[in-house]
Amino acid sequence: MNFPESVYSDEPTRVQQLVSEFLSGQSGADVGADGLDVLLTAGADAKDDCAVYDIGSPMTLVVGSDYIRGPKFILHEMGLLSDFDIGYYLAAANISDIAAMGATPIGLLSVIRYPHELDDSGFRQVMAGIHQACTDFGTLNVGGDIGNAERLILAGTALGVCRPGKVLRRDGARPGDLLCVTGVCGLLGAAVAYFPKRDSFAGRIPADVEQRLLDSWKRPRARVAEGRVLSRLPYATSCQDTSDGLKATIEQIMQASNVGFRVIEQDVPVDPAVRMVAELMNVEPLALTMSASSDFHLAFTIAADDLPACRADFTEQGLDFHVIGEATEKGGAQAVHNGNSRPLPGVAWKHQKSDISLLAAGPPEA
Amino acid sequence: MNFPESVYSDEPTRVQQLVSEFLSGQSGADVGADGLDVLLTAGADAKDDCAVYDIGSPMTLVVGSDYIRGPKFILHEMGLLSDFDIGYYLAAANISDIAAMGATPIGLLSVIRYPHELDDSGFRQVMAGIHQACTDFGTLNVGGDIGNAERLILAGTALGVCRPGKVLRRDGARPGDLLCVTGVCGLLGAAVAYFPKRDSFAGRIPADVEQRLLDSWKRPRARVAEGRVLSRLPYATSCQDTSDGLKATIEQIMQASNVGFRVIEQDVPVDPAVRMVAELMNVEPLALTMSASSDFHLAFTIAADDLPACRADFTEQGLDFHVIGEATEKGGAQAVHNGNSRPLPGVAWKHQKSDISLLAAGPPEA
Repeated sequence: MNFPESVYSDEPTRVQQLVSEFLSGQSGADVGADGLDVLLTAGADAKDDCAVYDIGSPMTLVVGSDYIRGPKFILHEMGLLSDFDIGYYLAAANISDIAAMGATPIGLLSVIRYPHELDDSGFRQVMAGIHQACTDFGTLNVGGDIGNAERLILAGTALGVCRPGKVLRRDGARPGDLLCVTGVCGLLGAAVAYFPKRDSFAGRIPADVEQRLLDSWKRPRARVAEGRVLSRLPYATSCQDTSDGLKATIEQIMQASNVGFRVIEQDVPVDPAVRMVAELMNVEPLALTMSASSDFHLAFTIAADDLPACRADFTEQGLDFHVIGEATEKGGAQAVHNGNSRPLPGVAWKHQKSDISLLAAGPPEA
Repeated sequence: MNFPESVYSDEPTRVQQLVSEFLSGQSGADVGADGLDVLLTAGADAKDDCAVYDIGSPMTLVVGSDYIRGPKFILHEMGLLSDFDIGYYLAAANISDIAAMGATPIGLLSVIRYPHELDDSGFRQVMAGIHQACTDFGTLNVGGDIGNAERLILAGTALGVCRPGKVLRRDGARPGDLLCVTGVCGLLGAAVAYFPKRDSFAGRIPADVEQRLLDSWKRPRARVAEGRVLSRLPYATSCQDTSDGLKATIEQIMQASNVGFRVIEQDVPVDPAVRMVAELMNVEPLALTMSASSDFHLAFTIAADDLPACRADFTEQGLDFHVIGEATEKGGAQAVHNGNSRPLPGVAWKHQKSDISLLAAGPPEA
């Protein structure tokens, strides 16, 4: 391949056009040796939350990596999130990928590179945040890489296990399946839209609502318990975490499963804090709810027949989810309101700009 | 813990004093759930190349993460290493940790964050380098995280498997064991010492020697085959890769195994290119050989009785190693020459400064 002039594609384009030549055909590969049977059931070409290894009875291994933006983390730069908070977020982001596979986390590896300006107390706070999140989600920080760098860099890798055949992929949604989400989305996106402009809105968002917005970043919850219930039968025919935003998540499941989706607008839960920020910014609340927002809910599909049993299992554990639509034959994702259809509102995460600039930009990109 | 004033400890201090409260007591933990037995045999507290999981018969899982410095990579900044080269190096660095455990790699996860300045061609080259290294070392790039950032950031996680009981740790060296290394060390360190000052030494290093120095960075070899032979009985009672430099590696095995080491100076192989750079810089060749240098040889110990069989197994596969000393009762690491002992020469990797500044500094730090 020759590039006569410099080309700067966005991330989806790079992943689809440039990376695939190196990653295609992995899934199904026998990657064992020395008489050890290891099957790479889902490799990079599967484009799921994690890679999946079948390592023989009685378990399947899942593993995924996530980088989080340190100094680009505007709320951290503004002093609204502490070093502890970003450590916590790093662990939650990685463990969320394990949850999305329906697996139980068995460990986190963390890469923590710090600049000279980060003193021992700050460094310890990052580690303490990671430790607390691992504890909260029932796992351990088993290693990684610690050292200096010219700036703060945080990345992680989480490992999990589940029973063979129980892993939740993105590609199993079938027409007629119900589309569900474990809770309200958009809080984290609303927070990064609001706080940098806070001064111009002085006093118009009450303190308790501001705190709710911040808490969504400070103590995100990886939906491990929910993922484990969903993998039981497995109930879920497809599953993905909403860390790219609800709209992007629905579109990714749609593409992986080769279906369409009809989302019932009034059934998508909108958080009062998100609504308040949206109104302040003159944006549609549903659009802000579905836009790029790094929250860690699970979006999934289940067969309609499984709804009562799945609901009962959730309720028994004090968990909840919302049915927000259904899968259709292939034909795009539509939002439906009073019989009228439109494309899903919101700005999907493109990875090419920061979430801040995307949200601040107002109208969706073409 | 309170820090009344800002304290900036170096990395070893942080790892020992600040991190241990979060990581101690992990090894031996039952980390399974839902009836799946997963034992964290070696966690972060074990301070080995990788974490080790026993996941039931018939295999043990090892996993480790490494970050590599992108823009701080002086030879890349100077245009001597290509984007392909640093991708290759990233994969080799991570797979080297799997090799050091005596395991077979089953996959690599790569975190690639690129700045806007890196065009599609450069991005593709990074991916191509990773792909080539994975191919060369018999594994696959199974996933990770791709996206933009304000600068180039490269990190990875490698996974490997070996038979239960065959994993090579750092803590098993016993007094009387022979200390060995799979090849010449110090080439990568010599390259970063030499090239930034190249103009002032114009013409004094022949082109083929310069190429040899550069090739050590461009195509490092993770010693997967060597590690697998060493894990056979297992032959090796301890093993670690030399990515921190030979001196640091010997000292780390020493501390983990609670032994001392006597290194026979004339038995440590010194590469002619390292010797030439050392003489040019008025540094002792052995010191440059043993200093911070990110090469990926394996340093290991074996029982003297196992030497002939281990040597035969290496030879049969076209592999080699050098016996450079022996483990002693606890009492530090000494270099011995003509009956005289001294502390090991060289500058150990401290992670607090870059390898460049350490080597350029000349005399070892106190």
